[in-house]
This record gives sequence, structure tokens and C-alpha cells, in this order.
Amino acid sequence: MKIAVDAMGGDHGAAVTVPASLQALASSASIKHLFLFGREPDIEAALNTSELLQASPKLSDRISIVHTDHVVDMTAKPADVLRQRQETSMYLALKAVAEGNADACVSAGNTGALVGLARHCCGLLDGIKRLAICAQLPTSRSNTFLLDVGGNVDCSGEQLHQFARMGCALVNALDSHTQSRVRALSIGAEAGKGNSAVNQAVELCEADPTLNFEGLIEGNQLLNGDCDVVFCDGFVGNIALKSCEGTASYIGASVHELLAAQPASVLQSSVQLMRSIDPEKFNGAVLLGLKRPVIKSHGSSGAVGFAAAIQKAVDTSQGRLIEKLEFALN
Amino acid sequence: MKIAVDAMGGDHGAAVTVPASLQALASSASIKHLFLFGREPDIEAALNTSELLQASPKLSDRISIVHTDHVVDMTAKPADVLRQRQETSMYLALKAVAEGNADACVSAGNTGALVGLARHCCGLLDGIKRLAICAQLPTSRSNTFLLDVGGNVDCSGEQLHQFARMGCALVNALDSHTQSRVRALSIGAEAGKGNSAVNQAVELCEADPTLNFEGLIEGNQLLNGDCDVVFCDGFVGNIALKSCEGTASYIGASVHELLAAQPASVLQSSVQLMRSIDPEKFNGAVLLGLKRPVIKSHGSSGAVGFAAAIQKAVDTSQGRLIEKLEFALN
Repeated sequence: MKIAVDAMGGDHGAAVTVPASLQALASSASIKHLFLFGREPDIEAALNTSELLQASPKLSDRISIVHTDHVVDMTAKPADVLRQRQETSMYLALKAVAEGNADACVSAGNTGALVGLARHCCGLLDGIKRLAICAQLPTSRSNTFLLDVGGNVDCSGEQLHQFARMGCALVNALDSHTQSRVRALSIGAEAGKGNSAVNQAVELCEADPTLNFEGLIEGNQLLNGDCDVVFCDGFVGNIALKSCEGTASYIGASVHELLAAQPASVLQSSVQLMRSIDPEKFNGAVLLGLKRPVIKSHGSSGAVGFAAAIQKAVDTSQGRLIEKLEFALN
Repeated sequence: MKIAVDAMGGDHGAAVTVPASLQALASSASIKHLFLFGREPDIEAALNTSELLQASPKLSDRISIVHTDHVVDMTAKPADVLRQRQETSMYLALKAVAEGNADACVSAGNTGALVGLARHCCGLLDGIKRLAICAQLPTSRSNTFLLDVGGNVDCSGEQLHQFARMGCALVNALDSHTQSRVRALSIGAEAGKGNSAVNQAVELCEADPTLNFEGLIEGNQLLNGDCDVVFCDGFVGNIALKSCEGTASYIGASVHELLAAQPASVLQSSVQLMRSIDPEKFNGAVLLGLKRPVIKSHGSSGAVGFAAAIQKAVDTSQGRLIEKLEFALN
């Protein structure tokens, strides 16, 4: 398994992506080689300060740097990025995957640019109208995947039904023993409680013998672990996911403040708690609908999160995501 | 100020609404009289077991029971409730407000039925197309109001713009010193990052000299306290609010589990923390667009929450909400 990493993407660039890549290499023997795309001096600097690399110098045999001068700016307009089509770290990493030189691509860069370039470089699977971005919800109770959390505002019922099928294919790639339980995100549990697109998608899902569709789910049940795949349009999904994240971070800060004055043993437990609900562990959203596996890391993610995104690239690739998507879409 | 309470609504009925009403009476001298609509035996039973009433027997001078045999079932279809138009506790409480026998109505009953009956009994303000349900977000950092969190799925840009104006009128009624900062809930901070209705509403808000419109806000910023009013359609708002609530309850349970094994002093701090972020304190969503103040309490709310909803009825009424809405909508 070869992984192409956009080393310049995200809020912290190589300072996060390089240590994370080394961590991923150290913990996953499945990664035969990892390509770091970006500015060589930045990447070298991060490699040179790595304690992990000093302790395990052999890791460097499994790393190559592919130098590029250009980087996609985090605030660049996707349309401009697509039009210019510069040899950026993101573009070259995607191209490596598209041309078969790597099995999967990971980037923490500009989401809109990644979606546009991934679509351009890797192509869409037959029958796919829109890419969906599928995130794992930050709950330790189970693995629940939410899609679309990206930019597909104003989706049709047909598209939502396609998201349901693609989400199940992803869960199946990550855990082939699971017969995915699918639900539609809505504002009530009873049938008919959706907006018009959701209501139409529910009809399609109910009539679809390949899906294990269990009806509607409300926002307050997202973290209950009662299902494997929750689908919605990208506007709703993005807001739902970020509402969960914002609340977790608000309460996390309050807990931290509260416990700062407590004895060290208590503080230790608090750190453990916050670690157990740390969204970083679940980082790495999968772009579904492409002919190749592409993973989007949170832009603000630290090394733990970016390493989790790399691991998701490995897992989806090993789980033969693309084959399963093709099967699900037929 | 006279308040009409649907004493039978909610998951717990009179066992919650009656103690909450007594609490509200005891803590707010502004409430001259409180009418409890519902089954007399249930209400009497709850009054008879109240320690507060035993300690302050004079509270009973400010309470009347209005007996009714019928109750709106929590799972009844709003259309059926409207068609039957039985003399339920909810209907009679709303009628009392509509006819000027009370200043505001509070119910924890079936949301759809309450919206339909309130519209029927109290009527809509001129120019209002749809009622909006406006909730206060559970954050101690500031008072942020989110609307619509109800059932207005599939809203137009014009309706969203109307929600913005109504939300500001509510904030102004509750705190006349505030020049409300308004934002639109969306999936990015930059203009154009909404769905089509949001983008249209943003244009209308930007061109509206009566609004202090500050652009878009993302789901993870809802609890930051950076604005007073956030508007969105009822599908998105309901899911955002419930996602926040679900996450808070998930993390709350984890914190509780963690601290259960700690010394009593720590547990005490935890209880304090959970109280400080307790959504009950912010309970009481305001139905905006009616000619009378109607407050919807959470169905699962306890006495603290229901008392907060009654207080909101007092505050909106004292703050002359309806006048301010009429002014805002002109």
C-alpha cells in the first residue's frame, strides 16, 4: 500500500503532516511507502526535528519527498484553483493516486479545492452525480458515519438515496461483517417528518432491497450509536457535525476549567475522558463517488488526527472501497 | 400579568407543570394570577403534595384551576387535533390568551398541535406567512436565540429574512438595551456559502437598514456567544439544536461516570458544572408571528425547565413582544 500525502495542506502544514506520517508509518506495517508532496525545505525541517525518526531511522526508507513550489491556499476559491491547475502539493498528490502510483490520497487542505481537483484528477464513478463527504461521528459508543457533511447544498431525494448506498459501501469496506443500519437525519421519528427531499429519499430507501433502512433519526440521537450510516444533504450534515463539535469543545473547556483546581489524580481522569471523546481520533472524512480513495483531514487537525486520517486511507484501500462502491451503485 | 398554563402537556403533565407554576409564582411578583388548565383531580393532587404551597399557603390565592376532561395526546396528529377542536387543556389555555383573559400561554404539549391551535386561536400578525419557533441556546456565555427550530421545512429566502426580523424583536423585548447582532446559520463564513434560500436571505438582510446583520455563522460557533440571533429554516435549526443537546447529554453522562468514583467535593463541582450548562435553564421557546405570546416548553422538561418557560412568558409579555413584532414587520 502506497499513500500520497499533501504535506502542505491544513492550518499547520508540514509541522503536523510530517510527524503524523511518521507515526502512521511506525504503527501500520501495511503502508509500504508514503509520498510527501510539498516544499522540500519545510518537509526536511520537520523530518529533522522528529524524535520518532531519530529513534527509528529505518522509517526514512519508506518515505519519499516529492518537491513542489506551489501550495493551494486555504482561502483560495475552488474555481480559481481548478482553472489555474498549478502543480500544487494537493494536485500532484491526487495525480499520483489517479495515475496508480499511490493507492490513496490524504489532504488537510482547502475542502472545496480538494473536492474539485479530486473530481478532475480521479473522475467520478458511473452514475454518480455529486461527491459526498462522509465523516465518522466522534462517539466512542460505536462507529456512526454521517454523509454528506461537505458542500452538496440543495440535494434531491435521488442524490440522498445515492448517499445512503455509498455510506453503506464505506462501512462495508471498513468492517465487512457489518450489515449497515441506515437512517435519514430529520426532525422527527415518524415517516413524513422530513423536508421534501428527505421524504422522497425515504421512499426510495424503503423500496431498496439492498439497504437495511431503519427510518428517520433526530439530531439528539446522532451520538447514540444506534446506526451505522446517517444520510442528509451537505448543508444539514455540515451544520449537524459542527454543532456536535462546537458543543463538545464548549463543554470540554468548562470541564477543564472546573477540574483545573482539583487534585492531580482528578485532572488525570479528566484528560482521559477528553481523550476518549477526542474528535481527532475519528478524523478523516472520505470523499465518496470518486474512482480512487481520497481522504480529507480536518484543516485544524493535529498530528494524532492527521495520522488517523492516513490510517483511514489505509483501511478504505485495504477494504476495497472502490469495488464496493461500484457494486453498491449498480 | 396573568398566565395561562396548559397543565396537562408534556411527558409528565401536572406532576411537573404544577410544582413549576408554584415556583414561578413564588419567584416572580409580576405574575398576578396563574390559570391551570387541565383535569382538576390531577392538578389538586399535585397541589396537595407541594411543600412550597404548604410553606407559603398564600400562593393559592393567585392560582385558579380551569377543569377540562380532554387532553391533547403527545402523539396525536396536529391535523386531527385541529379538526376535532375539542375543549382540551391546550385549546382552552390558548383561548384564554386569545380572548384577553390571560397575557401569555405556556404549554409543554405536542408541538405540532400547539402551533396549529395557537395559529387558529390567536391569529397571525399582518404579513406573517409562517410561525417560527425561537429557542434560546444552552450556553452561559451569552444569550443567543436560534430560529426557526420548529417545523418550517423548506423555507424561502423571504421567510428567513422575516425570521431574522422577528428574532431581533424578541431579543429587544427581552433586553431593550440590546441592538441585536444577527447571523445566518450556514456552512462557511464567506458570503455565498449558503444554500439557495440562505443566499437569498443574506441579500435581503444586507439591504435591510433595520437589521444589524453580521453575515454567516457555522455550527461550531453557535455556542460562542458571538451574536444574539441566528436564523435558519426549521429543518436545519431543529437538527442543529438537537445535535447540541445530544452532544451535551452524551458528554454529561461521560463526565458523570468519570467523577462518580471521585471524592464528594469533586462530585459537587461536577454537579455545579452540569447545572451551569443545564439546558433546562434556557427552556421555553417562543412562537413568533402570533398576535399573542405563546411559549413552548420542552416536552421532557422538569419543574426547573417549565418554571423557566413560565418566566419567559412573563418576560416577553412585559417586554411588549407583540408590539415590537408589529413594529419590526412593518
